[in-house]
This record gives sequence, structure tokens and C-alpha cells, in this order.
Amino acid sequence: MSASFREIKADVRARIARGDWAPGALLPTEADLARAYACARATVNRALRELAEEGLLERKRKSGTRVRRAPVRQARFDIPLVRREIEDQGAAYRYALVRRAEIAAPDWLRARMGLAAAAPVLHLVAMHYANGAPYQHEERWISLDTLPQARRADFTRVGPNEWLVATIPFTDAELSFTATAATEALAAHLGCPPGDALFRMERSTWFEGQPVTYVRMTFPPGHRMTTRY
Amino acid sequence: MSASFREIKADVRARIARGDWAPGALLPTEADLARAYACARATVNRALRELAEEGLLERKRKSGTRVRRAPVRQARFDIPLVRREIEDQGAAYRYALVRRAEIAAPDWLRARMGLAAAAPVLHLVAMHYANGAPYQHEERWISLDTLPQARRADFTRVGPNEWLVATIPFTDAELSFTATAATEALAAHLGCPPGDALFRMERSTWFEGQPVTYVRMTFPPGHRMTTRY
Repeated sequence: MSASFREIKADVRARIARGDWAPGALLPTEADLARAYACARATVNRALRELAEEGLLERKRKSGTRVRRAPVRQARFDIPLVRREIEDQGAAYRYALVRRAEIAAPDWLRARMGLAAAAPVLHLVAMHYANGAPYQHEERWISLDTLPQARRADFTRVGPNEWLVATIPFTDAELSFTATAATEALAAHLGCPPGDALFRMERSTWFEGQPVTYVRMTFPPGHRMTTRY
Repeated sequence: MSASFREIKADVRARIARGDWAPGALLPTEADLARAYACARATVNRALRELAEEGLLERKRKSGTRVRRAPVRQARFDIPLVRREIEDQGAAYRYALVRRAEIAAPDWLRARMGLAAAAPVLHLVAMHYANGAPYQHEERWISLDTLPQARRADFTRVGPNEWLVATIPFTDAELSFTATAATEALAAHLGCPPGDALFRMERSTWFEGQPVTYVRMTFPPGHRMTTRY
């Protein structure tokens, strides 16, 4: 009895899983497979075409059909506003400004963002809560040479990230993920013992080559950032 | 004197940076801008078109030209094989298998990967070194129902990740980033005091719905994962 294209698909999948055909391996020709499965070549063609559309096979006119190698694995993360992230979880969002000061950029910040000597920056510390529990500690520096209007912004009312998104587009960003031990101050804000392991995101942003902002977003112990691909 | 398209581009950028035109704001019509800059409409058109190509403006035939809002920020990470990551940094790669055992899947792993009761899994612990220094601690579980051929693989010679990439494509993966405190065992392997804050990646992979592997990759203190976008 001849095989259907669904049976052929299932069999090809099983043979790949068993290791008969490893990633990169060349499959037999459609004509050979049609003989093996005792079916029309068009049936084999449909099965292979659909497996290629599903990403399991790679087909090239000249060199035949191969099992796709795992590509360089590329993970994508959506990084929404923290308010939206909390509200999307169905939780109540609360924001509090902890500290606001205009300072001369310290050397480490000048080096990191490419700021001029003694460039004025706005230093902000803020907390974001989900249903009353600490969700994210935000420590941010904004270049006042690039964004003098930040001096007039009311950060007791609106979070720095929301204000920035509404104020200036960014053209370049550098994002880092790391772990850090809770300092006394972080521990107090995030409600954990000092020394606890905390997940941290850092982001630097530029607008047309001008430094805009550098931020450290630190989360309570156990926080996970997850994506599927 | 009439403005060149380059001068217009620079001026539009400056006005966006100053906040004259916020993200989402509608710009004047090309005709109005041509009058304001005392130039031909084609000159304005070229300036706006190039700024749109650079991603700063959004143009729609009916509704005119707007300053682009920051999109939902999406970050992409390339996740290469650890060997390639180390060699790309110009460092010498060394691999060592620490532990290999066939076990019945513990409950937490069964729940996480969707394994059957008492499903056999291969539990592997391995270390990856860059120029002799600990770079990544890998703890991995492989489903032997899905990949019985893992029993025959020589993991003293080839890392589990490299073996998997050569053996089976994956069709779905879930990736998490988190922070964890160094256990005694992790501290000994990574050369840091117990309790130190460590960055960890976790990944679960499936092939056509079948659980393949779950891995925890833990890095020494101070490790950063960085991307630009």
C-alpha cells in the first residue's frame, strides 16, 4: 500500500529523531523516496515541502534536501515598559520616586556613555511595585546636555522610562544582563537580606550619537526573564 | 538662502532632540516645511525620506509624517556554542566532564519537561574553561526516551551541547535568565566564595513536541551578557 504525505512526514520526523538522518545530512532524492514509500513523487514532494516550511528541512534546487542544522541560536526578548509588564500580569502597578539629584557625571559614567568632563546628569532612583510587592529597583542617569528638558519633568508623578519614551526616540542601545549581590540599600528596597543574588538589566541609550541615559534595573531574588523561540 | 537637504535633516534631528516634536508628533506638511526652509519641496522630501529610512520618522501617504515612537523594545541575543564563544574571544577552550549518571527523572524535571513517570534521563555535569579559567558550569538532563543514542555518546570527549547540535535539530525552546547564589559545589567549580551572586541561563528544548533536554548554564561572578540594537 502506498504511503500518504502525512505518513511520510511522520516517518521522516521519526528517522531524524532516531538519528538516521543527523542535522546537515542529505536525504535521498524524491524519486528514491517515492520508490521506498511506494507512492507518487508528488506525494513525497508535498511531505518534504511542508517539513521545510515547518523549518525541519532545508531544500535547495541544486544540492537536494537536508536536515536543517540548529542555526546560531538567537533569542528575542520583548522589553516592555515595567508598568505595562506588571499590568499585563493583571497586577496593580505602583511607582515611587526615591531620589532625584542633579550631579556632575562621575568618571565611570562619563566613560560608559561618552559624556564630556563634568557633564551635568540627572540621577534618579525609583521603585516599581506589583500588587504592593517590590518588582523592580531602577537607578538611572540622564544626560542633561542631551535632554535639558528633564530638569522640568515631574518624576514624582511619571516614571523616568515612561517620560523618556514620550520625549525622545532612541536610535542605539546596549543591553546587558548580569547578577549582582544585594547592597544594604537594594536589600531594603527589594525586601531581601543583603548579599542575596539579584538579576539585573543594564541599558545605555543614544540618540543620533548623543548619550541619552544609562539605567540599572534590579529585581528581587528569584526573578526570571523568559522567552520562547 | 535656501537650506540643503542635509541642513534640513540636521535641523529636524535637533528639533526632535529638543522636544519640539515628541515621539508620535505630526510634522508640518512638506509644502509648509519647504516654505519655512525656503527651498524646493523635493529637497524637503529627500530629507524626510532619508530620516524615515534611518528609522527616525514614519511616513504615511494619508496621514503625513510623524516622529517614530520607540517600538516595544526587542532585544536579540545570539547564543553560540560555548566553545565558539570562547574561541571567538581569542581564548583557548578546554572542556571537562565532571559527572555522568543515568537516573529516573526527578519530579521537578518531569513537570518542567513533560516527561513520563520514572522516565530515564542522562544527568551530566561539565565545565568549560577559557585560558584555564572557569567560564561556564553546565548541568544538563537529556531525555533517554527521546534520545536513547545519548547512552552511547562519549561525553568525556565532546560537550553535551555540541553533541546535541550534531544529533538532533530542536523545534521549540524556552530560555530563562536569572541570578542564583553559589552553592558549595558551584563555588568550588567556578572559583568563588559560596553565596556569591551568579548569572544563570536555563534552556528547555523540544523536538516535535518530545522533550529533549534541560540545561542550567552558570557563570562566574561578574559575567555579563551584552547585546546592541
